[in-house]
Amino acid sequence: MSELKDAELDALLPSVDCLLVQLWPGRLDRARVARMARLSLVQSGLAGVNHVPFGALSAGVVVCSNAGGYSDEVAEFAWGLLLSAAKRIVRLDAAMRRKGFVRPPTPELGREVLVLKGRTLGVIGYGGIGRGVARIGRAFGMEVAALSRRPAGDGEVPGVTVLQGREGLERVLRDSDALVLAVPLTRSTRGMIGAAELSMMKRDSVLVNVARAEVVDEDAIYERLVANAGFCYATDVWWAGESGEETYSPRRPLLELGNFVGTPHASGPSAVAGRGPLRAAVENLLRYLRGEEVFNVVDRSEYA
Amino acid sequence: MSELKDAELDALLPSVDCLLVQLWPGRLDRARVARMARLSLVQSGLAGVNHVPFGALSAGVVVCSNAGGYSDEVAEFAWGLLLSAAKRIVRLDAAMRRKGFVRPPTPELGREVLVLKGRTLGVIGYGGIGRGVARIGRAFGMEVAALSRRPAGDGEVPGVTVLQGREGLERVLRDSDALVLAVPLTRSTRGMIGAAELSMMKRDSVLVNVARAEVVDEDAIYERLVANAGFCYATDVWWAGESGEETYSPRRPLLELGNFVGTPHASGPSAVAGRGPLRAAVENLLRYLRGEEVFNVVDRSEYA
Repeated sequence: MSELKDAELDALLPSVDCLLVQLWPGRLDRARVARMARLSLVQSGLAGVNHVPFGALSAGVVVCSNAGGYSDEVAEFAWGLLLSAAKRIVRLDAAMRRKGFVRPPTPELGREVLVLKGRTLGVIGYGGIGRGVARIGRAFGMEVAALSRRPAGDGEVPGVTVLQGREGLERVLRDSDALVLAVPLTRSTRGMIGAAELSMMKRDSVLVNVARAEVVDEDAIYERLVANAGFCYATDVWWAGESGEETYSPRRPLLELGNFVGTPHASGPSAVAGRGPLRAAVENLLRYLRGEEVFNVVDRSEYA
Repeated sequence: MSELKDAELDALLPSVDCLLVQLWPGRLDRARVARMARLSLVQSGLAGVNHVPFGALSAGVVVCSNAGGYSDEVAEFAWGLLLSAAKRIVRLDAAMRRKGFVRPPTPELGREVLVLKGRTLGVIGYGGIGRGVARIGRAFGMEVAALSRRPAGDGEVPGVTVLQGREGLERVLRDSDALVLAVPLTRSTRGMIGAAELSMMKRDSVLVNVARAEVVDEDAIYERLVANAGFCYATDVWWAGESGEETYSPRRPLLELGNFVGTPHASGPSAVAGRGPLRAAVENLLRYLRGEEVFNVVDRSEYA
């Protein structure tokens, strides 16, 4: 679409049935969306659909996420963030680059480096990414507790406790030594990890975010990190700035903290490179065009 | 022992039957060792015994390593190093701390961040650490090839190909997308990864060292990293300086490279903190004192 001139794009709009978008293009503003009178399906290339302007789409338009398209790669990346933080690798590497071989005393290092075996892994959001994260956690000899929208069904990872609702969330928060966020950003997950939830977590636990930054309250996590040097936050996702795109705001200078690990939304491109997400999105679109049942239809009432 | 005055220590030497040492103490020099006429067993607290002065011990002294005492913790740490490097987390975090949210283009990030599923994990040294590393690799959906001194036996990790000898080593080097070194430092493993071996490895693979630095040739690895920006070396262990202790030598400025991850031998203390290694060492000593079979007796001919 980026190759079309405005006039060409405008001429096409009335005949568009289906739309495959990676990230929703700024050129498709409310006025142009209104001109797509035949539009019946939006297929997201990204796993999440929080970039889609739901308010501009008429009620009959079906919106499909690309959940699952990135699961393996994002689950691997979540483990990278988890271990980089739990084993203090980012911090220790940075200290060596500043000072050479300076080894903290054995008891101090022993307290700092978190051992995972026998401890509890929490997973919030138990779709493709969450299940992948849980499966690897079991191989580390961890107890695994997952918060899911649905009760445990078939095809579950053996040995994972599946929980629901507010009570389930609080139990996962309290029990976890490491906790991975893998929920979509919806009305009900926006800000779900705020000051109250953070205060339920163990003081020396690790929180990993491969979902969307806005699942976590920015002020609350910053204050938590400043007040608890033993608590770590490791994230691949960032709060949107005024442009609506992910950015880093020095108002909350997370990047100056030693108990923080940050990457610039780097988990997805490794999946894109393998073409798995594109294949999954196109296959879903083809199912729609052939009149078959499509996957990953989102509940539009969950999005603003 | 560090609490004894010299005269007290000297008075004890002739009556010492067994010695439990963490790292061999500098005070136990050749002259003092010669005075321990009854010495029959040396039990190392560390997993490796390369710190023991074999040449000073009479031929009948049995030396036991503490292999296995640190396995779970070191295997976890190896995975931390592997993922920190493969997912470029250390480098991406450092770039954000310098420049804020600057995201490399998707294709570039996609090429940089290594996806593990379906790729091959090599493990050199298939004891407790190596098996732990292999088990986790299977949960990541990797093919696993391990180089072992012994042919595959019972109690193996399912799905791991166990190889031997020079031919096995070369196959592991050639096939691996990520390779973990977990061998003891012996006559035959010192320098086993030199320029020739590195040249057999894939250009974009990751080499992880949780064994001893001297298994890898310092000049060869530095040159390999400078010549191949896509190749990563991640290590917790460092070459001994003139004092015989681990240090960082700016002669080969690894810490200035972006395709390097280094930690100051931080994998062990997390095990020490859990007292597992001390318990294992004392239990072995008790087996000896009760006249039972001891574990982890090392082949002294493998050490200088």
